[in-house]
Amino acid sequence: MATDHIYLDNAASTPVADEVMAEMLPYMKQQYGNPSSIHRFGRETTRAIQLARKRVAEMIGASPREITFTSGGTEADNLALKGTAIHARSREPEKNRIITSNIEHDAVLEPCKDLESRGFVITYLPVTGEGLVRPSDLKNALGKDVALVSIMHANNEVGTIQPIKELAGIAHQAGALFHTDAVQAAGKIPLSVKDLGVDMMSMSSHKINGPKGVGALYIRSGLKIAPIIHGGGQESELRSGTENVPGIVGFGKACELAAKRLSQYQTHVSELRDYLIERVSKEIPHSRLNGSRTSRIPNNAHFTFFGVNGEDLIIKLDENGVAASTGSACSVKKQKPSHVLKAMGFSYEEITGSLRLSLGMHNTREEIDRTVSVLSSVVKELRELSPFKGKYA
Amino acid sequence: MATDHIYLDNAASTPVADEVMAEMLPYMKQQYGNPSSIHRFGRETTRAIQLARKRVAEMIGASPREITFTSGGTEADNLALKGTAIHARSREPEKNRIITSNIEHDAVLEPCKDLESRGFVITYLPVTGEGLVRPSDLKNALGKDVALVSIMHANNEVGTIQPIKELAGIAHQAGALFHTDAVQAAGKIPLSVKDLGVDMMSMSSHKINGPKGVGALYIRSGLKIAPIIHGGGQESELRSGTENVPGIVGFGKACELAAKRLSQYQTHVSELRDYLIERVSKEIPHSRLNGSRTSRIPNNAHFTFFGVNGEDLIIKLDENGVAASTGSACSVKKQKPSHVLKAMGFSYEEITGSLRLSLGMHNTREEIDRTVSVLSSVVKELRELSPFKGKYA
Repeated sequence: MATDHIYLDNAASTPVADEVMAEMLPYMKQQYGNPSSIHRFGRETTRAIQLARKRVAEMIGASPREITFTSGGTEADNLALKGTAIHARSREPEKNRIITSNIEHDAVLEPCKDLESRGFVITYLPVTGEGLVRPSDLKNALGKDVALVSIMHANNEVGTIQPIKELAGIAHQAGALFHTDAVQAAGKIPLSVKDLGVDMMSMSSHKINGPKGVGALYIRSGLKIAPIIHGGGQESELRSGTENVPGIVGFGKACELAAKRLSQYQTHVSELRDYLIERVSKEIPHSRLNGSRTSRIPNNAHFTFFGVNGEDLIIKLDENGVAASTGSACSVKKQKPSHVLKAMGFSYEEITGSLRLSLGMHNTREEIDRTVSVLSSVVKELRELSPFKGKYA
Repeated sequence: MATDHIYLDNAASTPVADEVMAEMLPYMKQQYGNPSSIHRFGRETTRAIQLARKRVAEMIGASPREITFTSGGTEADNLALKGTAIHARSREPEKNRIITSNIEHDAVLEPCKDLESRGFVITYLPVTGEGLVRPSDLKNALGKDVALVSIMHANNEVGTIQPIKELAGIAHQAGALFHTDAVQAAGKIPLSVKDLGVDMMSMSSHKINGPKGVGALYIRSGLKIAPIIHGGGQESELRSGTENVPGIVGFGKACELAAKRLSQYQTHVSELRDYLIERVSKEIPHSRLNGSRTSRIPNNAHFTFFGVNGEDLIIKLDENGVAASTGSACSVKKQKPSHVLKAMGFSYEEITGSLRLSLGMHNTREEIDRTVSVLSSVVKELRELSPFKGKYA
């Protein structure tokens, strides 16, 4: 099986931590009540959800009542965007515009397209070559017709961290709400919703060693949005459906762990990451680090290897025991070139040769050594097969 | 803990079966890849989802490609109703009406209300005193403006099974699509989508000893509906978000188990249920079975105990080691009287005194004996405290 494989695709998903598993298991076979039931089995699961809500809230400096559990980050983004837009339309119909950026995840861009088809207007902000949104661009784009600004916290491909606090302040000055997709940032960098001043924030469990199938949306106390899944009225009428109790319990524990080990995580992962960047830059010719050097999440390394096809590269790496990605896992199967790198002004060649290595708590220095060695020889091999052989030999 | 408690609320949720747990666990800590990743970790989880899709399909006589995984039954209902309505509006704007019944779960009724607020017209069919939709009522309500008919397969409160095949045929004759919420029926009675002739069918994992947080919508091959959660394009663009791999794997196994043990389940559970009904009817005066005697799912017993408050009853039962429900788990916390029993023409007194006991594979005859004994004395005790003391003493 894959156990001796080196896993460097932690931005796509992560293993469930032992401590998380241990807390989830009792909610499968023993404490299986429906939280809406008023008997003992129901009350036990209700209590478990309350504890999880508290833990998620604490990780981001929120109150438990500000946390709405969803089936994942994508649903949280959908709820934030559509829920705000639909609610705004019913109260202030003149506010029919949303501002976002060109480098958002599809979980933000696709709901925006859906809202466009329902009569909303979307403004897409450009980014710098490092993938940063310019505050001045947001300022210029704002107007009284803007209901919501949605800018991701850290980019899933190149790891660039946006100036969220500054952007949220600008949005508020113009009377717009501010949402951030923090799926890649929450649990990996210090992060307080109060300090950032955001109105909504999306999170995902499986990116931080929690189970798949669960996430949450932080919604600032007092803010009203419309639900997108209707039914039994769970999650304070904001997200109907029997609660995924084991998933929510696991997510809560994962947040507690992430908060507790945050500085350890940052040190370990960023040291490995910097070591990887340093060796790749030195040892593999015609390679380049993409994104920002300084405003970057600790676990992301994103390169272009000129003269190489990124997909061939990940297949060869996989054959040689290294799991990596060209960028967003979701986009790979669609075989479309990265909209993020395009927005950063990359040429076709720069996009084609791109590779994302995303690290996790369990990676070791020895794995990085093996990875660099495999990567060096695979890049060399592929360049020799390339029609541009002479150019990057 | 609750382990010596008798659990008779299997319509609300069920424990995860051992075999289901065993198949899920490897997808937590070892095979944790994102199915969208093209490396080994991703391919392993993609294969696991394919197997689960096949198993779910087989349980209902469908093809794997006709199964779309969701976060549960509620989301499946939302997808069927909104997805069909939105798609119909874009293609045939004159089809702006949906027909449903008065006794649907909130997961159908609330999306209908949402669609009403978006300009769709909803027709609610009445039911008989046993909770059955009359085919003639559907025939009379249909018209060229109807996009969809949605009638549940088995009712979650009183267990009445609707004549789905006949109703679907009538809907089709009038050019409407037919959806059924089979959350309480799938896995508990023999059920083939081809034989029933339905276009869409909702299912839930945690009602059949699978994990919470996962469900599916059967969508007949060739039928197009719109997604309600947009993003990375998973589930053939119909349901975006990283797949809940362990949940999906567990749901698949639960369906395989349910299909394999179906006749055993039906025999065991309906024998226990009939024994319960017989003893309650004989031994507890002024009690009445509600719903249909014949057209009823095997695990449901629903009574009215005159002169008793159902909520007091479940609290007393819980204190005495029996977990039961007044009806829908979701409605209980809302403290609203059952819309199902109202639609069946029940008086306030008949609704107030109602109790649902829903059985599962693990219940025993000895547990039913204990339940009847507890129920007898608790009903007696409550009647003695009641202002109607003389009436039902």
